[in-house]
Amino acid sequence: MAVSEYLQRNRERSLEELNEWLRIPSISAKSEHRDDTARAAEWLAGRMRAVGLQTVDVVATAGNPVVVGEWRGAPEGAPTLLVYGHYDVQPPEPLDEWNSPPFEPVVKDGRIYARGSVDDKGQVYLHLKAVEAHLAENGALPVNVVFLVEGEEEVGSPNLGKFLQEHVERLRCDAVMISDTTMFAPGLPSITVGLRGLAYMEVRVQGPATDLHSGAYGGAVVNPALALARILSQLHDADGRITIPGFYDRVRELTQEQRDAIAALPFEEEGLREEVGAPALGGEKGFGSVERIWARPTLDVNGLLSGYTGEGAKTVLPARAMAKVSMRLVPNQDYKEIERVFIDHVKSLAPEGVTVEVEALHGGQPWFAEPEGRLFDAAKRALARAYGRDPVMIREGGSIPIVQSFQETLGAPVVLIGFGLPGENAHAPNEWMSVDNFHQGAEAIAALYEELR
Amino acid sequence: MAVSEYLQRNRERSLEELNEWLRIPSISAKSEHRDDTARAAEWLAGRMRAVGLQTVDVVATAGNPVVVGEWRGAPEGAPTLLVYGHYDVQPPEPLDEWNSPPFEPVVKDGRIYARGSVDDKGQVYLHLKAVEAHLAENGALPVNVVFLVEGEEEVGSPNLGKFLQEHVERLRCDAVMISDTTMFAPGLPSITVGLRGLAYMEVRVQGPATDLHSGAYGGAVVNPALALARILSQLHDADGRITIPGFYDRVRELTQEQRDAIAALPFEEEGLREEVGAPALGGEKGFGSVERIWARPTLDVNGLLSGYTGEGAKTVLPARAMAKVSMRLVPNQDYKEIERVFIDHVKSLAPEGVTVEVEALHGGQPWFAEPEGRLFDAAKRALARAYGRDPVMIREGGSIPIVQSFQETLGAPVVLIGFGLPGENAHAPNEWMSVDNFHQGAEAIAALYEELR
Repeated sequence: MAVSEYLQRNRERSLEELNEWLRIPSISAKSEHRDDTARAAEWLAGRMRAVGLQTVDVVATAGNPVVVGEWRGAPEGAPTLLVYGHYDVQPPEPLDEWNSPPFEPVVKDGRIYARGSVDDKGQVYLHLKAVEAHLAENGALPVNVVFLVEGEEEVGSPNLGKFLQEHVERLRCDAVMISDTTMFAPGLPSITVGLRGLAYMEVRVQGPATDLHSGAYGGAVVNPALALARILSQLHDADGRITIPGFYDRVRELTQEQRDAIAALPFEEEGLREEVGAPALGGEKGFGSVERIWARPTLDVNGLLSGYTGEGAKTVLPARAMAKVSMRLVPNQDYKEIERVFIDHVKSLAPEGVTVEVEALHGGQPWFAEPEGRLFDAAKRALARAYGRDPVMIREGGSIPIVQSFQETLGAPVVLIGFGLPGENAHAPNEWMSVDNFHQGAEAIAALYEELR
Repeated sequence: MAVSEYLQRNRERSLEELNEWLRIPSISAKSEHRDDTARAAEWLAGRMRAVGLQTVDVVATAGNPVVVGEWRGAPEGAPTLLVYGHYDVQPPEPLDEWNSPPFEPVVKDGRIYARGSVDDKGQVYLHLKAVEAHLAENGALPVNVVFLVEGEEEVGSPNLGKFLQEHVERLRCDAVMISDTTMFAPGLPSITVGLRGLAYMEVRVQGPATDLHSGAYGGAVVNPALALARILSQLHDADGRITIPGFYDRVRELTQEQRDAIAALPFEEEGLREEVGAPALGGEKGFGSVERIWARPTLDVNGLLSGYTGEGAKTVLPARAMAKVSMRLVPNQDYKEIERVFIDHVKSLAPEGVTVEVEALHGGQPWFAEPEGRLFDAAKRALARAYGRDPVMIREGGSIPIVQSFQETLGAPVVLIGFGLPGENAHAPNEWMSVDNFHQGAEAIAALYEELR
């Protein structure tokens, strides 16, 4: 109880510290924020030292540094937990849709509004608060804890696989814990057992060598923006299925049991529609929204750019058009294979009069784990203690590409316990994290350490 | 001959003056250049006074001012010519494709490189040089000349129609001369007898209320960028014909005589392909490129924007997608009618899950004139004198929306004598005007005044 009381007593300070971290615009996708990512790493290392981790290092990589913090004073035979998270954040654009500046955290209506609040700084920091509470109250933890917090998750963790391999001895653990996901509903603790993979592509269509006057040339020159539109329009059929040959070959279909478990969850299609604010939902025929998001692969356009997009009318026939296209993948699709079939298919759709280039920008494998073993059992009990009800097993539609690497490189099971909530706007304007979940999450993690004793 | 010698003697100074004007970034499409457009108008008025026009006014409108300059000292019975042009220019973007800054004119390889060089400052200024030469050498012109130079041509001349109506007495003339077009080939003087009209639209597709995480929601939410791509892809059929119901109803088909005249022009498809630098040309089936550009209506995408378009990969499911779409129109299409059928058709293509808004940004009617009468005959002789060969009658694919208004409001015939050249990059990076045509154009206009005596 002392640990829990410590956390409650220090809630305000904990939140202030998190806000300090959120003020650092550690955007990994933009090279001009290189210094900010370094600063965010150093900030975290400083806090790790302050709460009493024994060894804290900011380890340089070919990209942004990795922060490693260790506390290894648990009784012999106690398990070692590795806590993985990331301190980098998504770009905040479009800026004019934020109600408050993305890097000036605002606490309002029980939410912390800031880029990175829930994805993933808030969820990383609550683990450190759990450690701090144990060390402050008991001088020790019942388990060994190793933090591994990287700065390139939002760009596909290009350097972490190598890092894991190079530090495999130091990172040896009994389980990996990740909090970078959401709960199914407010107050309903959730363990995530599946994630979708990702193949993120850029399609570039080149028509004429330079922009042309659409009057002087229009009608005789193939318009690259129209060519791109035609290519994109052919990637789904009328049932919302993706038309790329071979795309579904390895898709593991949902079992009837899994579909029944999904149907039993507290979910209303209309609630999701209201949450996203679209006039209607839509997707692959024959599936509900939860199935579509958890267990069906997708193809989305993430960005489009061509010609003149400013104020007013410019009569230009553009030289080129670009689309960012990403596919969410499910077990047992392989993102390298999907990249290949995507590239082949898109190039086969290129009309005469333009050239089409396709580049794979980043990718990650889908993941699914049966929820069993000592860590899962302890996690279930800890969440039940903190939230007063048993957790549900869920999946997420998003990707944490590194989950696979942990399993493969460290040979340890991975458990995903998320403290985000639906509608939290991760990757979108007005990202927020529930203040309650920030605090209850710290309590759940503190309880988990005890359950693992 | 004295007039011609005067022009030759002063070539260097004339070019320097033009460059001074080109340095003013008089971009009408961007409100932040309001002061620059005013400055460009005042600069021209100053030059008109300096060469000896009798009355020069910079007349305020609801938008950018109109410059009016008059010389009315011709013998009784002499005709009055109205010279129309524009001092506003297109936006210079994309800036990184310019070999030299767009508003720092560079003379190189016989070309003046600058935004507005050929469209339309260079072509306006050569008329003033012709007037200057006559006044300097003879103290008088054989005809009355009225300049009318506006600052909103590139945004559809929203205020000029009203201006013409309000100043109809002052602007009364026997013919309107416009130099804002190109010659068919270098050294081949050309009179333009047809222009395409324009209907410029913006299509906005809204899906979810805000940008979403493409992992957390992808598959269950209709992607507005894909919806836009599907709409755009349905606007042409496999033969390159536009599918909008009613679109071709009023199109005047080419006569066999017109097709024969086009076939007789010195034109190679491969030359056009090389000029535009595309891997192949393409367009409506059954027509050659000159026919497609001169006499067939088009539908082009001028701009596309959705989601994340910066460096790297951002996994966003965008809230909205935008396309700028313009249609070039031919006699007897009516741009108001085309706007209506476009809006109706595009809205009818909106899939469930998104809302579609369509806005008409600007438009203008197509134009065609039989090349006959006193002014045309004099223009043919003057061009033959300046270039040593008879001019050809051509059309242009671009639009000068105000041409119709001149005919209707002033009741005067319009003659278009262009001194641009193919490949001049009007509306594109590295716009240029031929130095020779700037000087020969002034000679041709000076000769025209004599031919009209």
